Amino acid sequence: MTESGRDRRMRERRTGHPHQLSWRRIVNRMRPVEILDQDQIERIHAASLRLLWDLGMEFQNREALEILERNGCKVDFDSGMVRYPREVVEHFVGLAPSKAEIYSWNPERRVGVGEGEIMFCGVGGPPNCSDLERGRRPGTYQDQCDLIRLEQSLNVLHCCGGTPVEAMDLPADSRHLDTLFAFLTLTDRPFFGRAIGRTRLADAVAMVAIARGQEPDALAAEPGIMSVVNINSPRRVDKEMAAGLMQLARSRQPAIVTPFTLQGAMSPVTFAGALVQQNAEALGGIAFHQMVQAGAPVLYGGFTSNVDMKSGAPAFGTPEYARAVLAGGQMARRYNLPYRTSNVNASNTVDAQAAYESQMSIWSAIMGGANLIHHAAGWMEGGLCASFEKMVLDAEMLQMMGEFLRPVVVDEDQIAFSAQVEVGVGGHFFGAAHTMERFETAFYQPLLSDWRSYENWREAGGLDATQRALKIWKSLLASYQPPPLAPDRREALQAYVSRRKEEIGKKGLE
Amino acid sequence: MTESGRDRRMRERRTGHPHQLSWRRIVNRMRPVEILDQDQIERIHAASLRLLWDLGMEFQNREALEILERNGCKVDFDSGMVRYPREVVEHFVGLAPSKAEIYSWNPERRVGVGEGEIMFCGVGGPPNCSDLERGRRPGTYQDQCDLIRLEQSLNVLHCCGGTPVEAMDLPADSRHLDTLFAFLTLTDRPFFGRAIGRTRLADAVAMVAIARGQEPDALAAEPGIMSVVNINSPRRVDKEMAAGLMQLARSRQPAIVTPFTLQGAMSPVTFAGALVQQNAEALGGIAFHQMVQAGAPVLYGGFTSNVDMKSGAPAFGTPEYARAVLAGGQMARRYNLPYRTSNVNASNTVDAQAAYESQMSIWSAIMGGANLIHHAAGWMEGGLCASFEKMVLDAEMLQMMGEFLRPVVVDEDQIAFSAQVEVGVGGHFFGAAHTMERFETAFYQPLLSDWRSYENWREAGGLDATQRALKIWKSLLASYQPPPLAPDRREALQAYVSRRKEEIGKKGLE
Repeated sequence: MTESGRDRRMRERRTGHPHQLSWRRIVNRMRPVEILDQDQIERIHAASLRLLWDLGMEFQNREALEILERNGCKVDFDSGMVRYPREVVEHFVGLAPSKAEIYSWNPERRVGVGEGEIMFCGVGGPPNCSDLERGRRPGTYQDQCDLIRLEQSLNVLHCCGGTPVEAMDLPADSRHLDTLFAFLTLTDRPFFGRAIGRTRLADAVAMVAIARGQEPDALAAEPGIMSVVNINSPRRVDKEMAAGLMQLARSRQPAIVTPFTLQGAMSPVTFAGALVQQNAEALGGIAFHQMVQAGAPVLYGGFTSNVDMKSGAPAFGTPEYARAVLAGGQMARRYNLPYRTSNVNASNTVDAQAAYESQMSIWSAIMGGANLIHHAAGWMEGGLCASFEKMVLDAEMLQMMGEFLRPVVVDEDQIAFSAQVEVGVGGHFFGAAHTMERFETAFYQPLLSDWRSYENWREAGGLDATQRALKIWKSLLASYQPPPLAPDRREALQAYVSRRKEEIGKKGLE
Repeated sequence: MTESGRDRRMRERRTGHPHQLSWRRIVNRMRPVEILDQDQIERIHAASLRLLWDLGMEFQNREALEILERNGCKVDFDSGMVRYPREVVEHFVGLAPSKAEIYSWNPERRVGVGEGEIMFCGVGGPPNCSDLERGRRPGTYQDQCDLIRLEQSLNVLHCCGGTPVEAMDLPADSRHLDTLFAFLTLTDRPFFGRAIGRTRLADAVAMVAIARGQEPDALAAEPGIMSVVNINSPRRVDKEMAAGLMQLARSRQPAIVTPFTLQGAMSPVTFAGALVQQNAEALGGIAFHQMVQAGAPVLYGGFTSNVDMKSGAPAFGTPEYARAVLAGGQMARRYNLPYRTSNVNASNTVDAQAAYESQMSIWSAIMGGANLIHHAAGWMEGGLCASFEKMVLDAEMLQMMGEFLRPVVVDEDQIAFSAQVEVGVGGHFFGAAHTMERFETAFYQPLLSDWRSYENWREAGGLDATQRALKIWKSLLASYQPPPLAPDRREALQAYVSRRKEEIGKKGLE
């Protein structure tokens, strides 16, 4: 039985539990914002094809080179350089689907990516984590599990975006098994696996199948693991990434091909130059992916930003970043591909900078027609740290955007002429019947924002948003309930992990 | 002689003075985002006309009622109720211009509002101010002057948006003279005057004319004072506001007609209901304004938000607010009018909430095609407090949007194919000739953001954005230079203020 909005609100007031909106799928019906005109889009397309043909991309993987040659590319097996004829790129990119559905072992948590639908995916990959009480530290498995629990507790997240923090206290060659076990037992959201080489992804597919009570092959029709494949910009795909991309294609798990094109570092300092390179690398990667398995789900990923020219450090959530997000969306739509962006910032603490840079990222993503926002909650320091408080802050910002995207209704009831008659000139709508019937659910209710008067806020302790976020995540973790995975599947997962660790202990990770 | 970007940066490094972009006019060339479809726009238009005809608006001003009757409205002189026929509204709203130019005594600070151009105007009207060192307090004239100096020091602001804080230590009936003196001597930006009654506005026109060395009549062709006229929603225009609106129209100073339609308080709880009321009140006010002086500059103002249903306090920068900003822009463009929005938030301290609610306001304003952002810098607590640190934080967010809006260039130079050839696969662009020639000015340089690594940031004191903003405004005030107003004009202004204070002392403010 679903709790009504009113009942939930009353329970929250009684228990002091943080208020949240319910889990739901989010569709953006607005026409995306355009920063490039049609002519500019075509110039970037043409320059990308020129780059792929005149200069090409390097694949450090023999099998990949063979596939590329077989499908019409000019391949130099000595240097690994691959030159793509225009028609080969256009043909294979044209085979990629415009949408994918992602499944969880819990059928209620299925989500889509593409054709207007947006997935919010948590932070992936930082080596450090932090919170206001314990400070900044290298991540442990305990931190990782707590962050996964927090992701599970935040209804707005559709997916865990890879390890929310690395478990630096576990052995590198088997820790992916512990992470997969945590994902499958602590949350019912789908998640990102790691496509470095084949073995980790094979473990992920096997374990998801166990959690679902399916054979691994069933995941081809109902994918459950997404994975980012970064191009080593400029224009290089290393051995492991190429292997991961092939494995993703063959198992039909969504691949997110993402060049990492920092202007002035891994790409030209100019906006158009970085965009051409991003586009060329994405097309080169996606065309290869479709050669391996035509029709397998794949996303166009954008990650163009700039460096701080004073320090050389990457900057995020900048004007350059926001412009690239809009332009990237236009390019992805030119190829009818789902589009991945991120919620990024470069702040070292959960402050106003973290918020305004993240809003630059979130707004440009939504306005740019993004279908997947990676690192949507918890990302700090340009990706070097996951923050518990930032995860709550991001959840608030994401919830707000979800609410913002609800379709507008303009009908007699909403126009409320009767309320105007009832209230009259200079009156007050607060007590009007039209208001009273609707006010419990009329407006967005925040998770983190405090709208009290200054005096009341001060009297209640005068906590800023970051201090309130600390209280919220602690409350969420204190009341955390694991999702209802059947005990026998949990045991089977445990057995799989033990067996594989033993194998890896004997033979190493392949 | 204008300093080059490189020279300025070198000087800034030498002096430690905060880096800023130069003052400039900003044009938004992007197609605005649409949250309403055409049919919804026309429904809101039709419902607004129905509200203006069936129920009407109240004007608490005899002269206004006479003008409205003379121009085709049905007027009840006893109740003050005015019913607008549809064709009267459409005719007079159609006379309003789509753009205005605003002049300063410094010709270099002229700006435009409308047809894609955007003005950023500082905070107006809070009774309190705050900063990290001195805390929150009722405003004084000293605070007001310091905030005006800070506005002058922030290149991104085009206009002072009214008193940045009220001078609570000065007598209410003459303090507008002190404020006008401060505006005209401490800054060279145009500013908002107060259109409550006629006298304050007449003083403003007279003093601007003195500062320019012109006769007051010259301001009709070169307006220099903008003013907000709020409707006392629902549907009431009080005596003083009506007088102010007439005075603005007759002196051809831009009037910003802004209904204050908080959903669930001064307007229906529903989005469409609030929007219809905002639109009806704006049209009623603008039609009246054009009856007084056809072709005088006037803006369509939107200020629809919602209340916190827990406390009844207004909430700002919410999803409802952002939706209303987009929809209001669509309505303003339907009538070909310049569109005013705001940079609002309800936070009680300069924290992540202040930043993310402000970004909701700024992004929806830019995406919604706003031509004037009032309260663009310094606004806190739903308008009850002006913050020195928030003014710096906002300046950073506004600068970023200005940079974001620069036109994209996609040509051979920007595509940088030669840099790709130079750098090669897997190389680094940092040292490339194409980069070296451009890196000094390639990217946005922040005023407030800190992009250093965590370790370097920590070593340098680990200040958060708000603490850094404190340092920045203190540095800006320490190096503040008054703009070059000729000494005789300054003396003439001083003499005007003395004479008027004497008159007011004898006869009171008329």
